[in-house]
Amino acid sequence: MNKIEHIGIAVKDLGLSCELYEKLLGVPAYKHEQVASEGVSTAFFKTGESKIELLAATADNSAIASFIEKRGEGIHHIAFDVSDIYAEMERLKKEGFTVLNQEPKLGADNKLICFLHPKGTNGVLVELCQEIKSASNG
Amino acid sequence: MNKIEHIGIAVKDLGLSCELYEKLLGVPAYKHEQVASEGVSTAFFKTGESKIELLAATADNSAIASFIEKRGEGIHHIAFDVSDIYAEMERLKKEGFTVLNQEPKLGADNKLICFLHPKGTNGVLVELCQEIKSASNG
Repeated sequence: MNKIEHIGIAVKDLGLSCELYEKLLGVPAYKHEQVASEGVSTAFFKTGESKIELLAATADNSAIASFIEKRGEGIHHIAFDVSDIYAEMERLKKEGFTVLNQEPKLGADNKLICFLHPKGTNGVLVELCQEIKSASNG
Repeated sequence: MNKIEHIGIAVKDLGLSCELYEKLLGVPAYKHEQVASEGVSTAFFKTGESKIELLAATADNSAIASFIEKRGEGIHHIAFDVSDIYAEMERLKKEGFTVLNQEPKLGADNKLICFLHPKGTNGVLVELCQEIKSASNG
């Protein structure tokens, strides 16, 4: 785990929350991105070497819609930057953590991602993410 | 807001969670600290320029005990490093945020801290913290 790559925050209204977090952090969102496969619309803010990612549901069956229905708006996950997501997934499985996807999948912000089951991490949804280094991607 | 100073995670058993987060992050806790005024026992892990703070209640009336009773273990707050906490509190009050303490108070890890009301930040408990620069502390 190299650093906190981002904190994901589940929100109902992305536009209103972008205005709010711009005031809070003192900087505007530097990127907006739709992740159709996850049914979310996202906005990213820089803070130090990390990012704040706001996530709003664009589909009723998205994980974000279900999270907000159960718990309300709030912090959804912590993502850690890793250098080799395959090696890190293997290491964590050997340590007893449960990965939610057996193979890394494509996430927002040009990343390969994998989630760990929050039951094994004190209720925290942990995401591993590795930046995809390719001239053809973003 | 200079950077994410730390993420606070509410846990039931600090000893067991320290073992777990040592495996997750690949580093041991570098500091343990009791904050009697808040009724919590804490452990800190470094990750990049930020920290993970595990918090366990040491008193039934602590905010962490009440959080876990209502929501279970999980992410409790995000703390942002600020250079001048007084100025930042003034700025945020003018922007419409609600501070939970009118004056900064002494927190763990040699910090002046102030919390913002989560109703004004999409359900996220935000802490501002400024390191106390003094030869006699830490």
